[in-house]
Amino acid sequence: MAQQAPGEIEALIALMARLPGLGPRSARRAVLHMLKKRALVMEPLAQTLAKVAGTARDCRVCGNISDHDLCPICADPARATGLVCVVEDVSDLWALERAGGFKGRYHVLGGTLSALESVGPDNLRIPALLARIADEGLREVILALNATVEGQTTAHYIAEALAPSGVAVSALARGLPMGGELDYLDDGTIAAALAARRQV
Amino acid sequence: MAQQAPGEIEALIALMARLPGLGPRSARRAVLHMLKKRALVMEPLAQTLAKVAGTARDCRVCGNISDHDLCPICADPARATGLVCVVEDVSDLWALERAGGFKGRYHVLGGTLSALESVGPDNLRIPALLARIADEGLREVILALNATVEGQTTAHYIAEALAPSGVAVSALARGLPMGGELDYLDDGTIAAALAARRQV
Repeated sequence: MAQQAPGEIEALIALMARLPGLGPRSARRAVLHMLKKRALVMEPLAQTLAKVAGTARDCRVCGNISDHDLCPICADPARATGLVCVVEDVSDLWALERAGGFKGRYHVLGGTLSALESVGPDNLRIPALLARIADEGLREVILALNATVEGQTTAHYIAEALAPSGVAVSALARGLPMGGELDYLDDGTIAAALAARRQV
Repeated sequence: MAQQAPGEIEALIALMARLPGLGPRSARRAVLHMLKKRALVMEPLAQTLAKVAGTARDCRVCGNISDHDLCPICADPARATGLVCVVEDVSDLWALERAGGFKGRYHVLGGTLSALESVGPDNLRIPALLARIADEGLREVILALNATVEGQTTAHYIAEALAPSGVAVSALARGLPMGGELDYLDDGTIAAALAARRQV
């Protein structure tokens, strides 16, 4: 494809096209939109992006992304200590915070175990989790990993690694999602909901 | 929705969500991707965006977006003078340049006439086009507006406005698109292709 725009604009389109959810065409459209609304869209975006790029870092305790050495959740004295929720990714932490109701702290693994992609326990933040048990005197670890094969394999590994410490380990409940209709749900979900049925 | 991320990151997500093709969810995903690849994705993007935001401007002759007062096409002595292709938007100019083959210059209107949105000839770059006829001694104006009602209304208006000057006015041909199958094409396209049939 021939170059149509000045080099810097083409470079910007190429960088935008590497974001998830954007391809070459939609990146071009987004950049053109920015170029047409320079004062309203492009300049605030450039400033905010530079600011975030300059300040964002991983929380040294839990791995959450924040603009401080210690994220707001780890720094919040009102959050319960001793109760840690283990998630795969920062996006999962955000989802749990959006849902509200959890008042403990988090631990972000940064992925799942994968023999294929040679991701072992030391590539995730599993040693750091084990260290927190003694350091913070954890009472309970909630494994809030995705209900996928990789997530459950990782959860199983962590549960085994935590067993000698005597800390209580729990996992998110399985069952019908809100608004779920039996006719449209997969067999696995229905079987899990049946196995975990509760008295009414 | 509760705030999950530091204020600056939420502000970045809100700004990204205003780009076409991105909504709140995909903007969140894109920002998270950037945050995870800070050195590889976020910093180059922040730098390039700041550079483009600082240098991008409209070409004073044709309205193309460039990083100079005069865009590379207007500044190119190899491009034919006297032949100007009128387009609605910079994205149309880029599309024509991608297609290749046109060696004249352009004129970007910046939209179409619209009584509903009260866009009149003076809100578009139509007076500037009329001025170029004498200034540059134009011989031919090609109306490469979209085959939409708005595009064709605007083309009709411009053709009438150009009539007194005696400059030749042409429009893009109408007919079957490449790979078009009659069975799948709309009646308007087939009728236009029939009316503009050519001897073989």
